[in-house]
Formats: sequence, C-alpha cells, structure tokens
Amino acid sequence: MNASTRSDRIIIFDTTLRDGEQCPGATLNVEEKLLIARQLARLGVDVIESGFAFASAGDFEAVNKIAREVGTPDGPIICSLARTRKEDIKTAAEAIKPAAKSRIHTFIATSDIHLKYKLKKSRSEVIAIAEEMVSYAKSFVDDVEFSPEDAGRSDPEFLYQVLEKAIAAGATTVNIPDTVGYTTPSEFGALIKGIKDNVPNIDKAIISVHGHNDLGLAVANFLEAVKNGARQLECTINGIGERAGNAALEELVMALYVRRQYFNPYLGRAVDSEEPLTKIDSHQIYKTSRLVSSLTGMMVQRNKAIVGANAFAHESGIHQDGVLKNKLTYEIMDAESIGLTENQIVLGKHSGRNALGTRLQELGLELSETDLNKVFVKFKELADKKKEISDWDLFAIVNDEIQAIPQLFALELVQVSCGSNARPTATVTLRTPAGEELTDAAIGTGPVDAIYRAINRVVNVPNELIEFSVQSVTEGIDAIGKVKIKVQHEDQVYSGQAANTDIIVASAQAYINALNCLYAALQNQEKRSPLTAQIV
Amino acid sequence: MNASTRSDRIIIFDTTLRDGEQCPGATLNVEEKLLIARQLARLGVDVIESGFAFASAGDFEAVNKIAREVGTPDGPIICSLARTRKEDIKTAAEAIKPAAKSRIHTFIATSDIHLKYKLKKSRSEVIAIAEEMVSYAKSFVDDVEFSPEDAGRSDPEFLYQVLEKAIAAGATTVNIPDTVGYTTPSEFGALIKGIKDNVPNIDKAIISVHGHNDLGLAVANFLEAVKNGARQLECTINGIGERAGNAALEELVMALYVRRQYFNPYLGRAVDSEEPLTKIDSHQIYKTSRLVSSLTGMMVQRNKAIVGANAFAHESGIHQDGVLKNKLTYEIMDAESIGLTENQIVLGKHSGRNALGTRLQELGLELSETDLNKVFVKFKELADKKKEISDWDLFAIVNDEIQAIPQLFALELVQVSCGSNARPTATVTLRTPAGEELTDAAIGTGPVDAIYRAINRVVNVPNELIEFSVQSVTEGIDAIGKVKIKVQHEDQVYSGQAANTDIIVASAQAYINALNCLYAALQNQEKRSPLTAQIV
Repeated sequence: MNASTRSDRIIIFDTTLRDGEQCPGATLNVEEKLLIARQLARLGVDVIESGFAFASAGDFEAVNKIAREVGTPDGPIICSLARTRKEDIKTAAEAIKPAAKSRIHTFIATSDIHLKYKLKKSRSEVIAIAEEMVSYAKSFVDDVEFSPEDAGRSDPEFLYQVLEKAIAAGATTVNIPDTVGYTTPSEFGALIKGIKDNVPNIDKAIISVHGHNDLGLAVANFLEAVKNGARQLECTINGIGERAGNAALEELVMALYVRRQYFNPYLGRAVDSEEPLTKIDSHQIYKTSRLVSSLTGMMVQRNKAIVGANAFAHESGIHQDGVLKNKLTYEIMDAESIGLTENQIVLGKHSGRNALGTRLQELGLELSETDLNKVFVKFKELADKKKEISDWDLFAIVNDEIQAIPQLFALELVQVSCGSNARPTATVTLRTPAGEELTDAAIGTGPVDAIYRAINRVVNVPNELIEFSVQSVTEGIDAIGKVKIKVQHEDQVYSGQAANTDIIVASAQAYINALNCLYAALQNQEKRSPLTAQIV
Repeated sequence: MNASTRSDRIIIFDTTLRDGEQCPGATLNVEEKLLIARQLARLGVDVIESGFAFASAGDFEAVNKIAREVGTPDGPIICSLARTRKEDIKTAAEAIKPAAKSRIHTFIATSDIHLKYKLKKSRSEVIAIAEEMVSYAKSFVDDVEFSPEDAGRSDPEFLYQVLEKAIAAGATTVNIPDTVGYTTPSEFGALIKGIKDNVPNIDKAIISVHGHNDLGLAVANFLEAVKNGARQLECTINGIGERAGNAALEELVMALYVRRQYFNPYLGRAVDSEEPLTKIDSHQIYKTSRLVSSLTGMMVQRNKAIVGANAFAHESGIHQDGVLKNKLTYEIMDAESIGLTENQIVLGKHSGRNALGTRLQELGLELSETDLNKVFVKFKELADKKKEISDWDLFAIVNDEIQAIPQLFALELVQVSCGSNARPTATVTLRTPAGEELTDAAIGTGPVDAIYRAINRVVNVPNELIEFSVQSVTEGIDAIGKVKIKVQHEDQVYSGQAANTDIIVASAQAYINALNCLYAALQNQEKRSPLTAQIV
C-alpha cells in the first residue's frame, strides 16, 4: 500500500511551492524552488505540490526539474495542479513524468456561487467534466487527486455526488478545500463526516483537506477534520499562501506531535501509542522555515506559533522561575524538537571549499559546481570582514548568488556620502547591456534615495519603488544586512534582493536586480500569465 | 446591568498592555501605553488590562495614568493584574482608583504541576488564598476578576471548587486560561461547559477565557468557548504576547462578525439577528493594528489573518477574475470593514500646526502642548524633504518624539562615506551628559557598523548589538525608514528606535537612544523587577 492510500497515519501534502508561492511578493525562481523541494524531502513531507505546470514555461520547468531531481524512489510524491481541462492535465503529466511517484491534482468549483458567476455551468455539466477529466488524468498516472473548489460553501448533496463520480473515475485522493477561509472547526469536521458517511465509495480514496486562514482557523479546522476522517493535510511552511495564507505545516505537525495521545484514538491507535502520526522529521522544521522565509522574502513574525523568534522565549520572571523549577510548568514542547538548538557549525576565513560544500549540503543547499564556486568567492569576501560565518550568513550568500537575475545592467561602483548635516549624495557607475559604462550622481532625502535617483538617471526605466526593507540576517555588529525591494511598473511588481555587510551596497545591488527583472520583462513583453495563480 | 455582567453579547477584554507588552522586545513606555489605551477606547474594547501595577514604579504609573485619562464614565473598564497577595492587590487598587469603572484581576495557579513545582502549596491552601484575596480585592472595587492559572491542565473537580469559592467571595468574572497553549477547541469547549454545568453559583459571574497560541489554536479555542458559555474574551492586538502570543483580537472580532449567523443562536439570538456580537468598531481595527505594531516594534507578517499586508490582496488571476465577476466568489469580508481603505488625509509643507493637531487627534494621538510642538518641528523638517506626509509618517514622527529616552548622550553630528570600493568610514560628534563635545571616527564592515564603532569609541559602555532592522514606514522612494535596534548588557536588553528619511542618521540616533537607556539603567542600577511579567 503506498503513501497515498494508507489511512492509519496523516499524509502531509506540502503546497508551499504552489499555493504558497502564489501570494503577493513570494515569487520564486526555478533554482529557489528546487532548493526548497530538496529541503521538503529532507523534512519528510509525503507529497510536494511543486506548481501548476500549465501556467507558464517557468512553472513547467520547475515542476519538471523537481520531478527529476527530488522525485526519487524513496523521495516524496511529486504533484502538479491542473484545471479540469485536457491541455492542463496533459502538461501536468509531462512535467511530473520523471518522478518515481507522481500525482495529478485536478479541480473544479462546486459551490452554486462559483457555478453561477465564475464557471457559468450547471451542476450536471460540472459532474460530467469532473468524471471525464479524472479519467483523462488517470490515463497518465495512477495517483489522481480531485478537488471540488469552494467545497465549504457547496450543497453537501451535490458535493457527495461529484465526489462519488470522481472516485469511480479513479481519483485516489479527494481534497476538500475551504477556499475562502470561512468555516469553523465544527462545521468543517461535520463536512468531512458527511462525506465519510454519504459518499458510497469513499473507502477507495483518501480524504484530504485544504484551507485558508482568513479568520485564523485553518489549523483548528484541519485538526477537527482529522478527527472526522481526513488523512491528508494540505499545508505550507510558515503558513504562506493566498491572502492570510494556508494552514501552517509546522503548527499542524507539532499539534499532532504534542497532542498525539489526544489524536491517537481517532486513527484507531491506543491512546498512549508513541508511533508518530506523521512522517515529518520535526528537527528539520526550523531550518525549513528559515529557508522558505529567506527565499520567498515572506518574513515570519516574532509571535508566530512554533517558528517565530519568540515562540520558545520566556520573558516573564515568574515564568522563568517556573521553567527553571520544572520545564513542564510552562513548556509543552522542546525548542530542540524543531531543531532550533542544533549546533550551528561555524565557518571562518580558514575554512576551505570542501568545508563550505559539506556544510551547504548539510543545510540542504546542494549547489552546482558553478554556483558553489560563486558562493565560495562571496564566502571568502565575507570571511575577511567578519570572524564567524553562521548558517544564516550562508543562506544569505547562497540566496544572493542563485537569484538568476538577468544580467543586463551591472553595478560597477557605488559611492555615497551622507550624514546629519550633509545632503546625501550618491555616485554610481553601471555597465549597460550594450557594454557601455555610464556614471551619474544624485542627491536624495537619504543615502538609499540618492542611490536610487542616481541609478534611475542612468537606467531610465520608469518604475515606482513600493517596498524597501532591510533585515539583519545574523546577530552582532558585523551582521549581514539583507535588502529587499519591490518596484512596480504598470500592474507588475518586480522584486530584487541583495545581502552585504554594507547596507548601502546591498541597497544598490537589490535595486539593480529588481530593475534587471523589470527591464527583461519589458524586452520580452512577456507578462506573467493570469493562470499562474490558482486557488483551491 | 453593567458591561461586566451582561451575558447576551461578547465582552472584549484587551490585554495588549499587560500580556502583550511582556513579550520579548515589546516593552512600551508610559506615553506609548497611553496612546495605545486611547486607541483601544476608540476601538470600543470593554476592558483594558493596563498592566500589573505592583511590578514596578513604571507599571504603576502607566496603569494610574490610563485610569485617569482613559477611564472616563463612558470609557472602558480599567483593570490591573495582581497576584493573590495583599500588597499586589492594594497597589492595583490604588493604581486604578481614578477610573470611573475599574477592575482588579487576581490569579493563582490550580494545576497540580504548578501547585507542586511552583507554589509548593496544597489544594486546600490554594482555595483559602483565592477566597481571602478575592474578598480583599472586593473591599476596594465591586468588579473583581479571578483566574485559576493553568486551568487547562487543572483537575476539573478542583477547578469547580476554586471557582465556586471565588464567586462566593465576590468574583464577578472568572477567567479560564489555557496558560501553555495546550488545549484543542473541543477540549476547551468541554472545559467551559463543565464549569457552566458544575459550578453551582456560575450564573453570578461572567465566564472569561484567556489563551496562548503555541499550537496555533487560540482563536478557535475561544470561539468554541463562546459556544459553550464564555462571554468575555481576553485578547491582544496582532495577537502579541508571551511566546507565540495571545488570541488575536482582530481575528476573534471579525470571525464573530463574518460568522454572526453561526454564533447568534449560542447567544440566544435569532439566527439572522444583525445586532453586533461585540461592541468593537471594526473600522478602527487596521489603525489600531498599525499603532501597536509601530509602538511595540512587533512586526505583523504579510500573511497574518485580517491585518497582514496580504490579507485582502488577491494575487491569483482566476481569483481576480472571480472577484471582478462577483465579490462573494472569493471575499468573505470587505477591506473597508477593518478601515483599510479609509481616506488618508494627506498633509504637506503648507499644513499648519492646527491641521497637524487635528489630524493627530483623529489618529488617536492626543499629545501634550510640548509634544505637539516637538512633533510639529519634525513635521516641517520632513515636509521639506517629501511632498506628502501620510498617517504612517505621522505615526513614525510621533513615535520618535514621545520615546522619552533619557537625554544623556546627544548626537550632534554623524557623517559617513562608503561604497563598493571604499572602506565605510563614519565620524560622530556626541555631547556627553557632562556637556562635553567628543568626536571620533571609525571604519566598519558597513556604514552602520562604522557608526556604531565610532559611537562606541566615544561612549565606552560595554554592550552587544543583538538586533538591527530597518523598515520603510511609507511607500515610495522618499519613504521614512525606521531603524530599530536592541543591545544587550549582561542579562538586560535595551532597545532604541528612530525614524528618518536618511537611514544612516536614523541608525545613529536609534543606537544612541538604546545606549542612553542602557546608560541610565547602569546609573540607577535599577534592574527591571522580575515581577513585571506575569503569565495567566
């Protein structure tokens, strides 16, 4: 029996690379997606929804590459989303083909409001499409997942019929999404129970759940669904995703771990069974969270459950006292259990290329020879400036070097003078795509503003800066600062990031990176397809 | 019947200034607490837990000032926390005295693990203390709240006894905390139902709930508690608080609003009653969230429910299409309902002192004449640099000017030169507490590092920089950047922040602010009392 049909444990279906990636600002390139997919495999997720292959050439490439490189025989199932349309399904099938275990996830809306306003189809038309398209997907792969979109607001009787037909047509997983994040735990649990009780062939499929956190209830809804028969949870690292995001993988996994005695009986186990409810290696949680946050630029707030900076911090005096007397007075889980306290091997200026490569591999950052060389150069530069290079420094360097920004304009020089009694002044020299070196200077309201104005004089691409942020990647006075910026041109947003111990240099480079993306897009006039982002 | 004993609607008890403020890094000064309290009153919370008066002189002053200035006859109830000790309760009573409506909230742990390891007391001793101390609190105020700490892990039978005695002694609210964030919604609902069914005099008190979000379940737990009889919810803005924080006020309020037809019957109302379940003016939610985030420095992640930057953003093409066809396909609430789209009156260089004062008042920023003058000077400086001054600019300026940093070292001049081919070099001139002007220069790995090194040469106070972050407060190329830094000396953390269009100047000022706090503390040797932070 393979993972997708077992029902005595919880299947973790990670959609960080599909639903997670489609939230504003989180766009990832192929290399970044591959890094995350490798880390998800190490984390032990059962299924990686790696994208929506039909959406664009870039999406296809990412799904295909992840299928080839992460979809090993003992690796996770690699899945692509597809609408219930032949061309979607065929493209998904091609993209996931290289994986040892692969899945097509197809969906169509079933709520009256969606039928009426979005699909403009009758109920019987929707049933016929679902049946036909699940069969079609089945002609490519054994493992087919079907989702009735907006199930939470669909008429239950109609939902049962659609699911029955989809399962009869070959769906091995049926996924119940709360697309708009509207349901409460009791309602969602009842919905799952209704499906379990009323779909005659439900024992032939795994019940999966998908949800959004608009009212802060996604995790609670999923746990209630588990109690009522759901065995697959669709979730994302750090809970990223459309709007308020998806259910957070780390919260679900740790709730199922910390409260296993509560959940055991619902999976037909003895109350005190210590057999894990999921296949997740919880010690990889913190590292995965940092990697996803770093690559997507979606920051995790301090008070985020499990992975926030404060999640395991104890401010209160009385509280600290309690913890010292007996850990259990205030702690329900160990920081160690999510890998937070793991020894961070620290590298320094005498560390060689091998030591760096080994550490990067341990961090899940398996780079090509070329990328490793680029990263090593940066590593040496940094090691000259600061004594100890931590894992977070390495994430920042790697992140920078594998960005795969089109190299159109290159930053040759940036020079700034500013201060409390000075007009901030910047000088920049850029090499244009034609190979010309251009230099200009500008004054601004601050040094970053001055840099941006000087660059704009040289590049001359209309754009609006809509976000600028700096974060220190590491602690201490010689910390690496990571600058993220977003610029807008017409309706499109382009982002760039750069890390450097000098935030002025990082700001200039981040801006050039964003402008290069914008400039490349203008050259191609290849707007992002409206299909890249689907909601289920 | 006053607000604290009504049971046909939900009482919102805000503990942003008590439990929220005690999370690492969120420390607020008295003026900042007062600004937040005023905004909470405008938001319409029923009770403000304004601090723990006994903890320190600063806490007492904050509670007392809020009682005097926000505790008006038609304002919220002002509450102070107190352990079940006479001196705590007496101090709380004094602090809240100026309020028209005031409450003492006293607590003692009731779980066996806390009794054994923390209190080292027997069950009968705990009951006697609870009874005696509630009576004692009652001698000062009519409105007394009692919390059995770690109720979620207490023996229910013992819990019922303690509550019965506390109510008999005069407690008008009994608050059931899930101190360690361990319970699931069904369990928490059952706990509340058990109390409702088994405490004989429970009809004489309001049942309140308090919870932590360690497993991501706080909001769901509270909503289940409401269904089982809880009528007061203890929550914080943005869900800040110990570890993973408290239940988020905005999520609770909007869930009760969006799903009012679901919750109505549990409050004895007709399903389609449109009478609001809480007294909250939801249009104030977004503004309150921004104010708290800005003053505490606790950033809100993009994918935070209700108040995150993405919460109302629709990335997906299909999704956007759906929204255009019919808003209800993907939206369960309006951005307008939390005040997100409210017209932001924009000020400019020609706006006078009156226009500024009026706008600040509308934003809930009622300043003293002196503070308004300081803010006006900064406003004019900023208006010379950028055309339009938004509300967020105003928050940043006010935030800066009311910090009440001890003025020991003053930054007279900072001057930096740096760039890709230069060694970052900073020159600073500081005026020492003795009035001396000292200048020094230093090189660093970046401009901020160089500034810090130059300042350290002058100030010579040992400290470790543990956090540095810059955020743009506003959009656009001439945005104000806000720098927050934290330094550590021995076990204590001191923070400083500053906003400026020049992040180099802001960095220098933020560091000086933090160092001044540190320096003042060293002079007073007045370490923060271990009592400042209590957990319930």
